[in-house]
Amino acid sequence: MPDVGVLSAHLLSGFQKELFSRLAEAGHDQLRPRHGAVMAHIATGGTRASELSERSGQHKQVVGTLIDELEHLGYVTRRPDPADRRAKLVVPTDLGRDQMAQAKRIVADIEHRLAELVGRERFAEFKAVFEEVARSY
Amino acid sequence: MPDVGVLSAHLLSGFQKELFSRLAEAGHDQLRPRHGAVMAHIATGGTRASELSERSGQHKQVVGTLIDELEHLGYVTRRPDPADRRAKLVVPTDLGRDQMAQAKRIVADIEHRLAELVGRERFAEFKAVFEEVARSY
Repeated sequence: MPDVGVLSAHLLSGFQKELFSRLAEAGHDQLRPRHGAVMAHIATGGTRASELSERSGQHKQVVGTLIDELEHLGYVTRRPDPADRRAKLVVPTDLGRDQMAQAKRIVADIEHRLAELVGRERFAEFKAVFEEVARSY
Repeated sequence: MPDVGVLSAHLLSGFQKELFSRLAEAGHDQLRPRHGAVMAHIATGGTRASELSERSGQHKQVVGTLIDELEHLGYVTRRPDPADRRAKLVVPTDLGRDQMAQAKRIVADIEHRLAELVGRERFAEFKAVFEEVARSY
């Protein structure tokens, strides 16, 4: 039986290939799977880079580079945080909000298919245990 | 509730950080998490690059670069495949076999801890569903 690292790598790879090829069909063909580390964790009202780093588990420097790339592609902008003028918020643009809505729809569709595959109750319990295990890191 | 992509990314990131910092303590401090895509899938008797690409879900070109790096670091060598002289096998060296044994021990320890955390039966069912879901890709 493969270990949880091998299983996570395999599932993540397949999931990302499906999500980003379907996003490309929906017009977001310049996004790459690595951008998911930011786009999957950003709030419509904006999120600090440090928070994106924490949520994605990626190093701050990596997240900074991804934000630069996404800003260049027109998906996010950096704005001063109203709660702390020295801090900056990463805020999705109209294009970014469209990507987030499309991704939400595609991800729901993928999870629906997986739940049908293994059974809805088993899938719900799988996700509950998955969250407990992932949270322990 | 986070989706299976976010959960996989989070678990993989935490798992890799733990595994590779413990491997570094055991003397394998030049290995990086990306090398896991090869080292986790190689057989002691050797494995073809195309098979490593298939098992890891990584592109052949990526796997080729990882094999080059691992050869340079002394973890693997390329040898002609006795079953097909035109093909090559990627074979672990003594150093590579030591890494594989250490990784096996550390991964077993991690999975034991996770099973204790969520309950052994729930963990076994979690892995069974995880394999069905991962296999669907």
